[in-house]
Amino acid sequence: MTDTANDRLRFTPLPLQDVTLNDRFWRPRLEVNQTTTLPFLYGQLEKVGAIRALDLQPRPLIIPRQPSGVTPQMWWDSDLAKWIETVAYTLATHPDPALEAQVDALVGKIAAAQGPDGYLNTFFTAIDPAGRLTNERDWHELYNAGHLIEGAVAYTQATGKTTFLGVMERYTRFLMGVYGDGPDQKRGYPGHEEIELALVKLFRLTGRREYLEFARFLVEERGQQPYFFDEEARARGETPDHALLSHGDALPYEYMQAHKPVREQDKVVGHAVRAMYLYSAMADLAAELGDESLRHACERLWEDLTSRRLYITGGLGPSAHNEGMTTDYDLPNDTAYAETCAAVGLVFWAQRMLNLTGDGQYADLMERALYNNVLSSVAQDGRHFFYDNPLESHGDKHRWEWHICPCCPPNVSRLLASLGHYLYGVSGEGIALHLYTSGTARFEVGGQQVTLHQHSEYPWDGKVTLRFDLDRPLRFTLSLRLPGWCRESQLAVNGEAVDLSGARDGYVHLTRAWSGQDQVDLTLPMPVERVYAHPDVRQGAGLVALQRGPIVYCVEGADADVPLHRLALSREAALTATFEPDLLGGATVIRGEVRAEESGDWPGTLYRTAPPRQATAPLCAVPYALWDQREPGEMRVWLREEGTERRPSSAPHPGRSP
Amino acid sequence: MTDTANDRLRFTPLPLQDVTLNDRFWRPRLEVNQTTTLPFLYGQLEKVGAIRALDLQPRPLIIPRQPSGVTPQMWWDSDLAKWIETVAYTLATHPDPALEAQVDALVGKIAAAQGPDGYLNTFFTAIDPAGRLTNERDWHELYNAGHLIEGAVAYTQATGKTTFLGVMERYTRFLMGVYGDGPDQKRGYPGHEEIELALVKLFRLTGRREYLEFARFLVEERGQQPYFFDEEARARGETPDHALLSHGDALPYEYMQAHKPVREQDKVVGHAVRAMYLYSAMADLAAELGDESLRHACERLWEDLTSRRLYITGGLGPSAHNEGMTTDYDLPNDTAYAETCAAVGLVFWAQRMLNLTGDGQYADLMERALYNNVLSSVAQDGRHFFYDNPLESHGDKHRWEWHICPCCPPNVSRLLASLGHYLYGVSGEGIALHLYTSGTARFEVGGQQVTLHQHSEYPWDGKVTLRFDLDRPLRFTLSLRLPGWCRESQLAVNGEAVDLSGARDGYVHLTRAWSGQDQVDLTLPMPVERVYAHPDVRQGAGLVALQRGPIVYCVEGADADVPLHRLALSREAALTATFEPDLLGGATVIRGEVRAEESGDWPGTLYRTAPPRQATAPLCAVPYALWDQREPGEMRVWLREEGTERRPSSAPHPGRSP
Repeated sequence: MTDTANDRLRFTPLPLQDVTLNDRFWRPRLEVNQTTTLPFLYGQLEKVGAIRALDLQPRPLIIPRQPSGVTPQMWWDSDLAKWIETVAYTLATHPDPALEAQVDALVGKIAAAQGPDGYLNTFFTAIDPAGRLTNERDWHELYNAGHLIEGAVAYTQATGKTTFLGVMERYTRFLMGVYGDGPDQKRGYPGHEEIELALVKLFRLTGRREYLEFARFLVEERGQQPYFFDEEARARGETPDHALLSHGDALPYEYMQAHKPVREQDKVVGHAVRAMYLYSAMADLAAELGDESLRHACERLWEDLTSRRLYITGGLGPSAHNEGMTTDYDLPNDTAYAETCAAVGLVFWAQRMLNLTGDGQYADLMERALYNNVLSSVAQDGRHFFYDNPLESHGDKHRWEWHICPCCPPNVSRLLASLGHYLYGVSGEGIALHLYTSGTARFEVGGQQVTLHQHSEYPWDGKVTLRFDLDRPLRFTLSLRLPGWCRESQLAVNGEAVDLSGARDGYVHLTRAWSGQDQVDLTLPMPVERVYAHPDVRQGAGLVALQRGPIVYCVEGADADVPLHRLALSREAALTATFEPDLLGGATVIRGEVRAEESGDWPGTLYRTAPPRQATAPLCAVPYALWDQREPGEMRVWLREEGTERRPSSAPHPGRSP
Repeated sequence: MTDTANDRLRFTPLPLQDVTLNDRFWRPRLEVNQTTTLPFLYGQLEKVGAIRALDLQPRPLIIPRQPSGVTPQMWWDSDLAKWIETVAYTLATHPDPALEAQVDALVGKIAAAQGPDGYLNTFFTAIDPAGRLTNERDWHELYNAGHLIEGAVAYTQATGKTTFLGVMERYTRFLMGVYGDGPDQKRGYPGHEEIELALVKLFRLTGRREYLEFARFLVEERGQQPYFFDEEARARGETPDHALLSHGDALPYEYMQAHKPVREQDKVVGHAVRAMYLYSAMADLAAELGDESLRHACERLWEDLTSRRLYITGGLGPSAHNEGMTTDYDLPNDTAYAETCAAVGLVFWAQRMLNLTGDGQYADLMERALYNNVLSSVAQDGRHFFYDNPLESHGDKHRWEWHICPCCPPNVSRLLASLGHYLYGVSGEGIALHLYTSGTARFEVGGQQVTLHQHSEYPWDGKVTLRFDLDRPLRFTLSLRLPGWCRESQLAVNGEAVDLSGARDGYVHLTRAWSGQDQVDLTLPMPVERVYAHPDVRQGAGLVALQRGPIVYCVEGADADVPLHRLALSREAALTATFEPDLLGGATVIRGEVRAEESGDWPGTLYRTAPPRQATAPLCAVPYALWDQREPGEMRVWLREEGTERRPSSAPHPGRSP
């Protein structure tokens, strides 16, 4: 047995068809996603008029206050596209003729809505033909096009039907005529990034390099001077007014990451979803073009995000004002916007960085975002959604059945439906396990089929057992992620311990001839961890969060007798984790004892000179992703911590990233 | 010597002419108010067009974005009136022919702007004659009238000239024709209270009881059903839409305290300034009419405010949204609105309750609001103002030279100019000292003049020495306030200790024959006190504030090397108070040692499993009222407290109100 210190491996996700899940954590969620969320979302899109809007009845330009009319919203095409994409991922693993017929019909409507020149946008065709392609800064034509391309790629891969692909290739070629560096072209790019990463997908499916080049053009043109959005505004007869446009940004176009060329960007700024989609495309281009400068830009931006601007839940973008970033270390909990789509976008970016570099830090954050912010955004019933994902609620925050800007529900839905893409990576030399669960992965090494059987109760338990189905022993590299949150991973092959000291970048690589008799046992101990935020995080001062494995915990009002701000966890308090099968479909909860301030001796007094008395009270913390599913009430991720003085001389070792 | 346990004494303020101040705390502020603020405010009113607006050039109804035009704002009359009132208080103690000529000219303009029917409002006369008296809910006609009446009363008392009084009596009689319970009258009342307390002043000056009755009508009609504001809206052809009008109120018209009759109100709700002005009028009416039910309503509202809805600075109204109240115990620090005018209004109300009941709790809060929230609102230079007065700033909060709604600067200015009204109270039996300072008070007992000489370095030191000038020994009651914040007041008359155990309601009453040889020494020890908020105040959990005497302290970035949230005060840390003559014109600061979290061992790490290391750092706390006058930076009133565990068994005595 050897622990091969390979150079960084570049991974490719497995096709969805080659991955099965039969675990107790994800599988029920994916089933609900398929059987409830998918039809529910279609129903909502029908209800608000997004389906009928494809009939292109011209109407006056009136944006309704509520999404109850049939006047199209500017981004409905993208919502339909995300639904189609979700269906496509579902059909890949669960053939369903009725569902396929439903999506075929929708694709037919979309095809019929395409203009004779290839242009395809419901809103501008029906509502504002004169406004077409005149304001990429604010209007979402290229954004919608990107989602439609993603939908077409997934639909083609799942069904083999090429109508939609043809429609979108035609629209793409139309757009390539409009935007470019030719004499009659506009040196433009979208205000809301999305099409760039979609074009890479289109390139990968079709092999047509012009789509990749178009993506490169859009990414590289971004932020060049003179600013396209300035030029475009002047072409409309408007004066570019950065003060009015920039959503409080210090710089013009920081809101849409167009303040300077992407290779010069080193701060994650502006609208969080847009940022994630742009960086995902940059990582894609870095991979496809071997462009080191783009990779370095991504690494700098990643470092900025993860060291200064990220919630412990994997959420990002604290401000509702710009749906995005504010300043370093500004991470408010109760007003945290942390939009679902931003965390979904972070998963996209993290996966691309992981595949590009083989570095486990990207898998760590992908996992953190997925198990916490992303999963929190959809209820276990599959039909209630958070648009924003605060880390503290005073009782007034609950999931909604719909949102006036319904981007998030179908975004989570398509991510869940394609979860198989995120679990494994294959390289020419073998397979890597990025996220642990129970199920199978089918892959090929040297022309021979291998089926990997994985069993675990992850994320509640860190024991993972692996076996293989193969016809004859076969030499390949099995790469196992050693999560950053885990202090003392243990590994055994056929009962024999493997030294993990050679593991690096968060993976151990085992290269040997594997046979059907081999068994690999990975143990990832999951003690309850206390997590502290950097001292510059004002909103974390004096507070502690609880984490176990990849799961971030919270305390809910349903489990406390007093307002949650009254609870203070002693530095020394023992905390135990127990799996409770009847709680929220089965979950591990953390229990212990806290101190709680008493108010009985404050009759009519608002301020006094003696500190509040405290009593002990039970603590119960539940996974953050599962909150707001019992009696409505408060929630807090960050709890006050009290106790032993933190003297400099006796300070413990700084510890690790959680 | 006897400590007479009088029944509650009702106090009347001394006329301003009978009070002098020669202390080192207030006198410099009053001089700046007179020599800088007063001309500065006139200049600002001139600059924005408020003076020219009196010329009544009709203009189209355009509300400018900036107060730089000459299109009147709806409340400019009130700002002019407050300036006149300030001038009047100034002239009462500092005759100044040039200033008097200036105010006479302004009064002349106001008189000339009065309509033939008696109506007087710059905005509606010039801009919107048809809108006159059609929307008391939103437009400020009665509010402006109230301020003009207050101005006329003060002007008349100071100058003896009756022109302005005549104008305002004529306008008042006009309004009494419009509003009332007669068959052709409107059962109306203002959306923004103010005129009610002004009418009581007008009654007190003129002795004309109809003004008092009109005030009673306006107060008692308030909140009766059917709601006047509903009727008024229908008369304009509008549908009353509570949802749009109520600034987030749960009930219709809670915003303007018109949701139910005033005697049924027991929660301080809505717009904070409006509430204070209403309650002040209720206290006035309770006093003038001997109306116990109004007094009880005031007492209930007071209890609600002080036990659930008040900042430690004497500020109130946490929300910018409605410029007012939210929910019980909701006292955010960094977003605290705590409008200057609300604290000024609280001083008005407190003084009236004090005069009505003789109860020192009202003096305690009057003092707290005055020395903290009110004084904070104007810089020592007399020309920079806070409109809102948060208890925490992250560095972006500074006083302004002007505000688009400039109600606060002249409100503070008139309060400072009339400070003499708040220091002493006289009853038939003697004099009471409400607030301590240095200076003299001239009063009469049984037809004989007494001059009381007071000397102290209050609020920096609690030693107060009193002597009298009188022709021959005279029997009267000297009532001395024993502040609620003081744990161990000591009193001596001619060196002989007085037992204070008989003091009640916050006053000790000394009735004896006083002579010019007598000396009274009151000692109010001022240790540094730690103050804690009720456990239901979420924003106070785990925090402590520092107070000494009536002064609330804060920590400023100018005195700290690290961000203020990193500071944690140990429960046991020694804190010392020192008067520093060179700091901010001379102030007592609190110094000690805190622990500060270090970030040096967090390279690139945002979260980790070991708590932050701490080092010791010096603490320097300065009076809250003096903040934002050195290098711009952060500020915090509430500091994190750490240290000894607060075990139930060893909990100290609950302590006192600070």
